[in-house]
Formats: sequence, C-alpha cells, structure tokens
Amino acid sequence: MSAATRARRLDESARITVLEAGGFVSFANCGLPYHIAGRIKDESALLVTTPKRIADRFNIDVRTQTRAVRIDRSTRTVHAVHAGEEQVFAYDVAVIATGAAAIVPAIAGATAPNVLTLRSMEDTRRMQELLGRGGVRRVVVVGGGFIGLEMAEALTDRKLDVTLIEKNGQVLPPLDAEMAALVELELRAHGVNVVTGTGLGRLVGGAEGVTGVETEDGRLFPADLVLLSIGVRPNVELARGAGLMIGATGGIAVDGWQRTSDPAILAVGDATEVVNGVTRGFARVPLGGPANRQGRVAGTVAGGGAVPGDSQPVAGTVMGTAIVQVFSLSAGLTGLTEKAAVAAGIAHETAVITASHHASYYPGAHPLRVKLVYEPGSGKLLGAQVAGRDGVDKRLDVLATVLHFGGTVEDLARLDLAYAPQFGSAKDPLHMAAFVAENQLAGVVKTVRVIPPEALPLDVRSAAEFAGGSLPGAINIPLEELRRRASELPRDRAVVTFCQIGQRGYVAYRILHQLGFTRLANLEGGYVVAASVPLGAGAH
Amino acid sequence: MSAATRARRLDESARITVLEAGGFVSFANCGLPYHIAGRIKDESALLVTTPKRIADRFNIDVRTQTRAVRIDRSTRTVHAVHAGEEQVFAYDVAVIATGAAAIVPAIAGATAPNVLTLRSMEDTRRMQELLGRGGVRRVVVVGGGFIGLEMAEALTDRKLDVTLIEKNGQVLPPLDAEMAALVELELRAHGVNVVTGTGLGRLVGGAEGVTGVETEDGRLFPADLVLLSIGVRPNVELARGAGLMIGATGGIAVDGWQRTSDPAILAVGDATEVVNGVTRGFARVPLGGPANRQGRVAGTVAGGGAVPGDSQPVAGTVMGTAIVQVFSLSAGLTGLTEKAAVAAGIAHETAVITASHHASYYPGAHPLRVKLVYEPGSGKLLGAQVAGRDGVDKRLDVLATVLHFGGTVEDLARLDLAYAPQFGSAKDPLHMAAFVAENQLAGVVKTVRVIPPEALPLDVRSAAEFAGGSLPGAINIPLEELRRRASELPRDRAVVTFCQIGQRGYVAYRILHQLGFTRLANLEGGYVVAASVPLGAGAH
Repeated sequence: MSAATRARRLDESARITVLEAGGFVSFANCGLPYHIAGRIKDESALLVTTPKRIADRFNIDVRTQTRAVRIDRSTRTVHAVHAGEEQVFAYDVAVIATGAAAIVPAIAGATAPNVLTLRSMEDTRRMQELLGRGGVRRVVVVGGGFIGLEMAEALTDRKLDVTLIEKNGQVLPPLDAEMAALVELELRAHGVNVVTGTGLGRLVGGAEGVTGVETEDGRLFPADLVLLSIGVRPNVELARGAGLMIGATGGIAVDGWQRTSDPAILAVGDATEVVNGVTRGFARVPLGGPANRQGRVAGTVAGGGAVPGDSQPVAGTVMGTAIVQVFSLSAGLTGLTEKAAVAAGIAHETAVITASHHASYYPGAHPLRVKLVYEPGSGKLLGAQVAGRDGVDKRLDVLATVLHFGGTVEDLARLDLAYAPQFGSAKDPLHMAAFVAENQLAGVVKTVRVIPPEALPLDVRSAAEFAGGSLPGAINIPLEELRRRASELPRDRAVVTFCQIGQRGYVAYRILHQLGFTRLANLEGGYVVAASVPLGAGAH
Repeated sequence: MSAATRARRLDESARITVLEAGGFVSFANCGLPYHIAGRIKDESALLVTTPKRIADRFNIDVRTQTRAVRIDRSTRTVHAVHAGEEQVFAYDVAVIATGAAAIVPAIAGATAPNVLTLRSMEDTRRMQELLGRGGVRRVVVVGGGFIGLEMAEALTDRKLDVTLIEKNGQVLPPLDAEMAALVELELRAHGVNVVTGTGLGRLVGGAEGVTGVETEDGRLFPADLVLLSIGVRPNVELARGAGLMIGATGGIAVDGWQRTSDPAILAVGDATEVVNGVTRGFARVPLGGPANRQGRVAGTVAGGGAVPGDSQPVAGTVMGTAIVQVFSLSAGLTGLTEKAAVAAGIAHETAVITASHHASYYPGAHPLRVKLVYEPGSGKLLGAQVAGRDGVDKRLDVLATVLHFGGTVEDLARLDLAYAPQFGSAKDPLHMAAFVAENQLAGVVKTVRVIPPEALPLDVRSAAEFAGGSLPGAINIPLEELRRRASELPRDRAVVTFCQIGQRGYVAYRILHQLGFTRLANLEGGYVVAASVPLGAGAH
C-alpha cells in the first residue's frame, strides 16, 4: 500500500490496482500479539485503513481475496485468481510485495486445528476463536524469537500456562547470550517456563488436535494449544515463476531502486533481500521499517519519479535494527552482534556497561545495559545491543543513526544529546559505553569477558555486597581500601578486578596499573553480567 | 569533578585539589526544580556524591567554602579564601570550572528576601524555607526559559498561583513560535497565568519584601514570592583577572582540548564558549551535557593523556540540544531554529509534521510535532524542534546525531530505526518529516507557512471537521470529493490546500497540481499549527 499510494500521489492519471490474496490490506501485523493479549481491544483498530478509504482518497482499485498466481512478462500481465476464476491485469509497472510466510515444519500434527502460527488477521481470528472457546490452559510456544516472546507475554497476560521452547541455547537468538539472559530472567520472573537448547521433536496427538509437544531431548510438554513461531520464509514463488532473479539469501534480488532483474517489475518487503549497512553484504531482514521505506521507493519509481541508475539502496541500507518488549523489559539490537561478527570473521572488540536510563536522582531510574561491538584500531561502530526497562528504543535509534553514517565510538562519545533528568544523564549511557570503548582503544584499560582460571578475581565492591554473593574464588578489597591494601595482592599472578557493573572495577584497575601491576584486567560488565543477575538487582 | 576524577584515573600520583566556593560538589543542578516540586523528596538525593566519597575513592582533596579569587600565572598559584583567610595552592595544571551565575537585574527590590533565583543548593534551601514557612500563595516567575518553565510547573505542583512573565512574544524563546505555542497552551491548561511580550518593569514593595511585579507595560501582578529566571552570565572574573583570553561571546576562550590562552590553565563548562556544530561559530551554551564532556577532556589533559595539538573540540561541537518538560508536554531543539537561521542569514527551508509518537493503533499514542530546518538544494539538516507528550527526547537525540555527522534529510528518511508498535511506527515521525522535506526538495510539493491574503484557503478535511472550526475565508471540499469537485475551484486565483496536520492537504495538492492548477501550495503543519490548537486536539 505504501507503493500504491505513493505512486498515486505522483501520478494522478495512472490506473493502480492492488491484488491481495487475503481479506485485508494495511493491517497492523506488529499489533497482532497485543490484540491477543487484550491490550488492543478492538480488532478494527488493527485495520490501519480499508479498501474503501483507499479508493476514496487515492482512487486505487483494491481487490481482496485475489491471489496473483503468475506474471507473464512477455505480455506484461499478472494472472490472478478470485473466487476460483482467473483474472488478468495488464501492467506497465508491477510491484511484488508478497511478503513472507510463517514456517510450518512438515511433521505430523503441524496442521492440527490447535497448532497455529500468527502472521495474518486470519491467524489472529483463529487463535481468538480457540482461546474464546475455553478449555485452553496450557500453551507451548515453539521458537523464542521476537514473535515467540511477544506471544509468550500475550498468552501469559491471558492467564495461560506458557512454555517457551527454543532450540538455541538462549532465547532471542539474534542477540548475544549475556543480553538475551536478561530477557530469559524476565520471562521466568513472570512465570513462563523457558526451555532452551532443545527444539521441537514431535507433536503428540492426532490430526483432530495435538495434546503436547515433545522436545528433541525427549521431554514432553502437555499443550492445549501450540504456537509455531520458528521463523518466516520469503514468498518468492510468484517472482521465481516469472523468471526473476532470486538472491543467494533466498529473497528476490533488487537494485537500489527496488527493481528486480526485469526493470518493469519492482519488489519490496519481506520477499526481497536487502543490503546490510555494516557488512554491505546481502541479507534478509523481514521487518516493517525497511519494508515501508522500500514501498515508498517503489511507488516513486512506479509513479514516474526520477531513477538516476543503480546506487546505494534508496530506501536505505538495513542495520537489522529491532526491538522487543517482554513484560517490563525491552531489548534490541542494531548492526552486528558479537556472535555475528565472530560468524562473519570480522575483527571486533566489545564494551559493556550498565547505567541508569535517566539521572539516578530522578524518581523512576532503571538500569540499562548497553553493549557496543566496534572495530579495533579505528573504533568504527559495528553494532550494538541495549536492554532495560525504559529508554531502550531511544538508545537503539541513536546507535542505528551512528551506524548509518559509519561513525566511531569517538563520535558516540561526542554526541550532544538532549538532557533533562527525566530523560537521560549529562553523561548518557551511550556516552559511558563509548568512554569505555575509547579507554580500551587508548590502552587506558584492558578488559576481559571471562576470568581466566589462573587469575585472581578481585571484588572491589563493599564488604556487604561481597557477603551477598560474589564470583568463585574472589577475594574482597573494597575500592576505598585498595590504595593502602594493594600490598595484599600477589605480583606473580594475574588479577582481574570487578565490581557490580564495571565502573569501580575500572578505577581499581587504574590504581593497580599505576602501582605497577602488569598482569591485570577489569571484568567487562561486572558481576551482574558474569553472574547473570537481573538488571534491577542493584546495579550501582 | 569530571575533570578531577578523570585526571585521577589517569594519574594515580598527582596531587589533586578541588576548590569550591559553595558547600557542595557534584550536586544535581538540573534536579533542583523537581526537589521544589516535591518529586525528589529527599534533598540528599541531589548530592550525586560527597567530598568524603571522592576522597575515599579518588584520593582527591575537596575544599568546600573555599573561593578561588586569583590565579598568579607567574608563580603558578591559585589564591583562595576560606573562612576569611587566604590560602595558596600551587599548580602544574589548573582547571577553571567557575560556571555561570543567575542574572539579577540592578533594580530596587531585587535583593529582597522573597526575590530568589534557583541555581545552587543554597538557593534551593532558601526557597524551601520560604515556601515551608507558609503565607506564600502567589508567585511571579520572571523569565519563560527552561528554568522558568520548570519552576512554573514545580510551583503549580505546590498549589501556588503562578504568573509567568516573558519579555519575548512567546515562552521558551529559543524555540520557534509555533513550537513554543504548544508549551504556552500547556501552561495555560494547567492554570499558569502566562504573560508574554512584556518584561519586568519594577518590583513593588520595600527591601524587607516585595509585594508584586509591575511589567514594562504597567500591569501589576501581586506576588508573595518572585523567582528571577532571566538567564545566566558566565563567571569569568577569575579567568579575566589572570589575563586569559575571553571570547567575543563573553565566555572563556578555549581550544579543542579545553586549554585557555595559557596552556597550563584549562577551562570547562558554563564559563567557557563552545563551537556551534552547525554554524562552526563560537557560542555560549550553558548546559550540563557539554560541560560534563568538557570536564572529562580537561581531566584527560591534566592527567597526562595525549594532546595532539588543536583540532575540532575533543568534547564535541555543541548543537545546543535541549529539552524541557512542562506538565504533560515536552519540547526541545537541536541545532538551528528557523529564527536562528533567519538571524544568522543562513538560507533555509522548513518542514513541519504532526504524527503519532508510536503506532496509532497501539494504546497511548500521542501526537508529536516535528519541525526540520534544512539547507535548500543540498537538504543538509541545520536543526530541528520536537514537541509532544512522549518520545520527544528520542527524536531529538536522533536529530542531534544526524547533525553531528552533517547529514541530510535524505539520511533521515533512510535511518533504520527500531520499530515495535509501543515505541514507534514503521514510518517514524522523523521519516515522515524527512519525506516532506524530500518532496519539497524534489518539487513534488510547494508549501507555505502563511496563507497569502489573495489566496483561497481550501479545507480538505471532512464536513464535520470543517464545521468544528476552520481558517478565515476557507471553503470546504473533503479530500474524498476533490477529484469530482475540482471544477468548483477558481483557476485565476491561488489556492492553498490544508487539512488538520498537512497530510491530506498534501494529497489534495498533488491531485490539483496534476489537474493543472499552477498557483498552488499546501499549508505547512496544517490547521493545528495555523490555528495554534493544542496537540492533543485530534491530529489525524
């Protein structure tokens, strides 16, 4: 619809037709979990606009329940099926926006009436109907990605017993483990039974309805309802059938102006592949933001707007910026994670901090964890992750903007951000994270992510904090006593300083470094990361 | 304190002394209004740290109640006064962080006990004492800048009758009028008596206490308490006395590493001048963010960190990014406003939009107004303003980041921002604003800010919206009827399309433009801006 309405605004005389296989256009996909949760009460709120309104305002002919099945490029026609009858539409420009479909594994029970996916209005109605009928008490959600997590929350909101099964060793696989750990803690704190490290083995029960999910490791989880949220695959059949080029990623290949290998056919959204803004390689990123921007670009081309040849993607390169809220915690990423950098063989360094999301003296401050992934030497930002209760979206957006410009951690440290105590700090968490990275780059501090077995863990928190729990083998010298008690430390053994979040550990590192300790490091992220403690638990 | 602690982290052996004329270090200036309001209950929460803690952690000698009165550069000594006695401190490096002082006009009554400023902990205690004593019912706040507005809210929270007097024709003078208008509406909605366009004439009453404020235009406003918040002046006496260079802006001149004209003396914060990141000229921006970053840079220099010669400011150029919350509304700016561009003679264009701060279908969406100021031709962003209930800080930070990189409205349109319905929209308000600017640059739409007297205002909202109030002389053709009723419009007269916020007006513009209407424009920002309607009032 973005493409169609943009084309209309540019070209009043064009005949514009939209073919939609389902019953709805411009519905709010991302709102579906919140409708299930009961937060968006009225289904009609999910219908951002209607075919009638589009006809009235934009003079666009919207054909719902009309599935495009074939594009004949030689005659420039799209062949569609409506109510069992073939319809043919001639085009000068065609735009493919077929999206992606939820993956359903080809196993017994997968098509049972109580095994669902959540992708369309129709899916949503099916689930509402099942839940409304009563008798559903136990739900198994298969897949701990964005939709899986949102649905685990939504179904918990509906007072159901929820088990979440994720094949990877962590929920939210796109994130690094220590960031995702916070999400898992949040899920558990709200009663979700989180099962990681094992995938869907089989669905137990018959075609009339499954009664449980057996994981690959043989555990059985009874279920009155199963939601499959194990990912999506791009709907490229129409494009492939027309002989258009499909990229190695499996998405439709497009140029910077969303043109396929046939320039009279454009493609946008989840069915296409995009250019990753960090690696400059192709990727599939099935998210609403890029899709909407791509639609507008396709509308510009279709509407006769200037096309100055191929170039960088006009809709923007994609950073894979994404965010999810799970109960009171939000978490997200932009650009490369550490694991993505490792997988791609990209040299990288990381900086992890915890800081209040706004001035700590102003009521309602909550801790925020920020992780930067950056290029050694240059300090160029490669990606970032943020988790916390509030202010996560803001930091992600700033970080995505720095990535857009190919900026460095030095740029990040110098940003002139808006400060008032209810919104941030004079030194924002982003500044703090950048300062850590700058110190690492300048050799002012050396950090480690894991304490090596031979090293002495030195806990510089207070005696009371130490008594409340510390890392294995740690000794305690509070920061305030370190200058006079440094002689208690061995000179022939590596020492790793740590505190709650890394800040006092850093000061301790600097003291010891200048006192001549050479085998020294500070533990990145501090105790809360190493011990995987919930963010709220006293991150001072 | 940022400079002192950073210096310590880099240099364990230095002797570091901090001289503080008042009784407190590292207190939360920006939190003072919220302490008065009662939101920050405990005064101790405002003390971010204490001299004792600084001594324990950082081995820094903090001398409160010790006023530096003279720097003798020939002997490298700072002369200070404590309890009436002179003390002398030798230095290798001195850092001047004398800040700024509230301006108090030299008029009768200005030093009366119930005429206050709010800048220090001591000021705060004085006000708390006066308010706690009882008998204060009517307060006049003189000055409608950031502190004046925060205090107008704080004193209203304390159930006082508040009059706010601002000499300029609008509150929040740093902002453009149509953005500040929203703030004024919010103040009035909460019972603040806003008086603009006339300044402080005289204070009525004797030295033992004033009883009212007379404005320049002769109106009398009774007052039991008067707060002066008419700006600050940099405390440069110490620097001037030492013969250091003072810039044309009145702030201490420093290089990129915060060094004054004597490289052994650094200066930071409100007492200094900064480089404006947009104009590259010098400016004074007395805000906490830049001051903290400058402090850290000075600490790096003082602590022996590398100084590779002059360069761009290491603490970052300053965009003047600022935000203020007034009751339920927040407003702020970064970079140049339209009025600043006009004053500086900088060619510019503007784009104004209103859009939901997050997906409109998700509960709790509120309208956000975004105004971009950009360079014609190149589309380079020069500045921006944002106002709304929620999400203002996020958009300002993204815009400040775009400014940092010298980015364009095209960059803004392509940012891959984090989207989930509770945080934003697939097309964020920032994208929408950038799209408008792109359309202006491409000649897709022509906008006007004011309807010329000879033009016909064409209201394309619904008949019901039109009936609820429209602009003088406007006729109504709802967008949905425009294609078939275009013949009703005169061809020999300019037509200005408008709707509630500008979006339907833009579609109408496109229809009429393609139907051959040549004397045509769309009203920027729509009815809500032109009629100065509160943001909440149906911005669809």
